[in-house]
Amino acid sequence: MRIVVALGGNALGNTPKEQLELVKHTSTCIAELVSQKHEVVIVHGNGPQVGMIQTAFDEAGQSNGNVPLMPLPECGAMSQGYIGYHLQNGIKNALEERKLIRDVATVVTQTLVDENDEAFETPTKPIGAFHSKTEAEEISRATGLPFVEDSGRGYRAVVASPKPLDIVEKNSIRQLLKNETIVIAAGGGGIPVVRTKTGLKGIPAVIDKDRSSAVLAQIIDADAFVILTAVDQVALDFGKPTERKIPKMSTAEAKAYIEEGHFAKGSMLPKVEAAIDFVSGKPEAKAVIAALEDAAEAVRGEKGTVVHYE
Amino acid sequence: MRIVVALGGNALGNTPKEQLELVKHTSTCIAELVSQKHEVVIVHGNGPQVGMIQTAFDEAGQSNGNVPLMPLPECGAMSQGYIGYHLQNGIKNALEERKLIRDVATVVTQTLVDENDEAFETPTKPIGAFHSKTEAEEISRATGLPFVEDSGRGYRAVVASPKPLDIVEKNSIRQLLKNETIVIAAGGGGIPVVRTKTGLKGIPAVIDKDRSSAVLAQIIDADAFVILTAVDQVALDFGKPTERKIPKMSTAEAKAYIEEGHFAKGSMLPKVEAAIDFVSGKPEAKAVIAALEDAAEAVRGEKGTVVHYE
Repeated sequence: MRIVVALGGNALGNTPKEQLELVKHTSTCIAELVSQKHEVVIVHGNGPQVGMIQTAFDEAGQSNGNVPLMPLPECGAMSQGYIGYHLQNGIKNALEERKLIRDVATVVTQTLVDENDEAFETPTKPIGAFHSKTEAEEISRATGLPFVEDSGRGYRAVVASPKPLDIVEKNSIRQLLKNETIVIAAGGGGIPVVRTKTGLKGIPAVIDKDRSSAVLAQIIDADAFVILTAVDQVALDFGKPTERKIPKMSTAEAKAYIEEGHFAKGSMLPKVEAAIDFVSGKPEAKAVIAALEDAAEAVRGEKGTVVHYE
Repeated sequence: MRIVVALGGNALGNTPKEQLELVKHTSTCIAELVSQKHEVVIVHGNGPQVGMIQTAFDEAGQSNGNVPLMPLPECGAMSQGYIGYHLQNGIKNALEERKLIRDVATVVTQTLVDENDEAFETPTKPIGAFHSKTEAEEISRATGLPFVEDSGRGYRAVVASPKPLDIVEKNSIRQLLKNETIVIAAGGGGIPVVRTKTGLKGIPAVIDKDRSSAVLAQIIDADAFVILTAVDQVALDFGKPTERKIPKMSTAEAKAYIEEGHFAKGSMLPKVEAAIDFVSGKPEAKAVIAALEDAAEAVRGEKGTVVHYE
């Protein structure tokens, strides 16, 4: 089976030290899944990591004239290198421990978005460090990013979260899969680029990694799309006394649950939506939302919540 | 022909803005070379860029408790993502302008070194920001890195520059070449890793990118190894009234010139040594040291300095 795995924030860490530890555990779960002879592409989030990188450059730029402002696409690219290195190192080691000889490689990935995407009209995602009003105005002039007052702690830049349309490096990802390489790609949803007269150009935005992985899964014709997170199953009435977990749901049921407001925005909702998108495009395939630790069983449909087309 | 191209510092930039501009020019030179139907792997340096990243984290860590210390291997991984993104974007655009449809992908790369390499006994490469004595002692305790007083401006960490032995992601690089993908790999010489009982582990060190590209060229059985830099030919008595440029030299001649002290350490010397290493391992192949702008002609042996085995 060809599988796209989306890794949630619980698979990574807030500092390099913490991340190296967490990635050891994550890599064990991924190695378990790989040992079943699948072709695997891993897409990871990067929220805290890209925030850390941007904060480092923002803060250092204020105290040190030699540190330049670092635009968001470049910060995202750095986070792909940083997280990709930890994952490819950790997974390779976990595979070797199981006497599995497979290559593991991170492909730096750009994701195409439409510059007329309506998300650009009302940017809502706060990113980077908190700034004073004066600093914010200065950075805004230099970068063109709008700033908003955020929770009484100062001003932060806000960017849009446009829809992913295409994965620029898709052929390279496909080519590596032919060789049974475990591929880490589209990290953080991919570096957002728009098409201009002179080619592709990076743009400050944040692409939801669940949406990007659904698009990648469709493009590379995956048989399964596995979204790994901190909970073992999707729940209705999450956190209420009436909470109940669901082992499976059809796309029709899932859409009805969304309508009823069961899934939290920015948390379970994008995962369920990404699952629906994928199986709607390929009805014979399956999507599973499961706990990181249950990755191998989830692929066999034994754990997690299966989303199927209907 | 399968070609490994090593890009010097003049191909990149000190800030993201400057780098985007310089990479446009670099990409034009690379596209020219690609248009001759070669398989191309590009290895770039990362000295100023990894320095910038490390300085950003060092400085921000001092003023902001939320920014963690960032170890050198992780900074190197970030620089691969950052520079790789600019190069793959720029080269793809330059190829499209020439109606050439080829994929371009950056592979995050680890380079194996020996932890008993004698370079680790006397680390000499200064990296990152300047610190006060107290700060230096603090960071040294946290990271284990030695610090030295540097040119009266404060204390800087120093690391070793060990010999590259193997390129961990070599199979993935080979696999992408089969598909005629332009591969960007082993950026900054690769992230240095050593073999431990529990697998490969990142280690703070700096690997010379010319040496790593020579190793990579050997491993993937390249037909040509092209080292692009800011001068159009290797010169004897460089900078003296007796300066003379040489269009070609045998490995025996090159070794004699090295003995005579013609090539500057950290500048032309590692390039000439890398060229000798490569053609010594594959006598029927050729190495060329040339200006970035002459890349395409250099591959045909029409410009630059050719180093051949003898």
